[in-house]
Amino acid sequence: MSKGAVVLLDCWANPFCLRAKIALAEKGVEYEARAENLFGGKSDLLLKSNPINKKVPTWPSPPLLPSRAYGTAKTRFWADFIDKKVFDAVCNIRKSKGEVPETAKNEFIEILKQLEGALGEKDFFGGDSFGFVHVIAIPLTCWFYAVEKFGGVKVENECPKFSAWMNKCMQRDTVARILPDPEKVYEFVIMLRNMFGIE
Amino acid sequence: MSKGAVVLLDCWANPFCLRAKIALAEKGVEYEARAENLFGGKSDLLLKSNPINKKVPTWPSPPLLPSRAYGTAKTRFWADFIDKKVFDAVCNIRKSKGEVPETAKNEFIEILKQLEGALGEKDFFGGDSFGFVHVIAIPLTCWFYAVEKFGGVKVENECPKFSAWMNKCMQRDTVARILPDPEKVYEFVIMLRNMFGIE
Repeated sequence: MSKGAVVLLDCWANPFCLRAKIALAEKGVEYEARAENLFGGKSDLLLKSNPINKKVPTWPSPPLLPSRAYGTAKTRFWADFIDKKVFDAVCNIRKSKGEVPETAKNEFIEILKQLEGALGEKDFFGGDSFGFVHVIAIPLTCWFYAVEKFGGVKVENECPKFSAWMNKCMQRDTVARILPDPEKVYEFVIMLRNMFGIE
Repeated sequence: MSKGAVVLLDCWANPFCLRAKIALAEKGVEYEARAENLFGGKSDLLLKSNPINKKVPTWPSPPLLPSRAYGTAKTRFWADFIDKKVFDAVCNIRKSKGEVPETAKNEFIEILKQLEGALGEKDFFGGDSFGFVHVIAIPLTCWFYAVEKFGGVKVENECPKFSAWMNKCMQRDTVARILPDPEKVYEFVIMLRNMFGIE
């Protein structure tokens, strides 16, 4: 599988495959359609990627959401928690006028500790692979350096397991090449604070 | 906008944009991130593509589903109708043993006439642009030549408006380059019938 390409396991005349290909083309998504021999013997990739019904069209890329309803529900719960809690806690600190109140710092740490509890002894939220919760959470972490500078909160000291998880995610190519440098984000926060007259 | 590229209107430090970019990268979708100046003046493309909240991330590509709930509900109704009715009607004809029964032919025509009624005097289902119903319906039409050959049903004569809609869709680049030649599909149907011992 070529790196960075959407692969579609395909049959040329199958209307369901044709639908997928037209929709991808309408959205401007490039893809590689790989012909399956549906009568002569399906590929190992198809059998592995779609073990239940073994049908095309199938995308062999790993799913971001778990396949079971309970796993999906937990994922959505934590994604919602991160959306509502972490984002607001970061904003409260970076927008503070004067010294950052202790309540704002404590709330930020408390929220990360709750996430640490959800992580438990695992490497990743909800199991052993990078998924939806990570896509939601990791972009907020490049703002944590600014939180440290303004609020004096060092995530590494307060929440070492959460910090280890951040470092593990940063080893992932899609994260490492997309997340901006936290120092650049810190400078951006200074610019924002100046722009909005926050001393 | 370069042809065939996913464009994302972006701000480099915005966590919501970062989420979108990590998810696209995880799925292997190539994209072009275009920087918006959120303080100096948003682009016309952003204002046109996301006129309600004017926020990034925004995809400027036209949506396949209508923006209003009523339009979406109608779209889903017709997509479901096509899924359940047209596909089965085509299968009934192409799998018929011996002469195709009149009931199977009449049912096929009746279903297309119902779609003609939904199309009305418009060029496209539900309005004046290519959308979700078209993505669902148009892949089935390359099987109609086989239906004609086996069932003696000429869609052009029976349902001229539906036929004109098919021709209009075929002028669309994403459809024209993806749909296979109906004669090739007809040969494929002959092969399938031989394989399954249908005379």
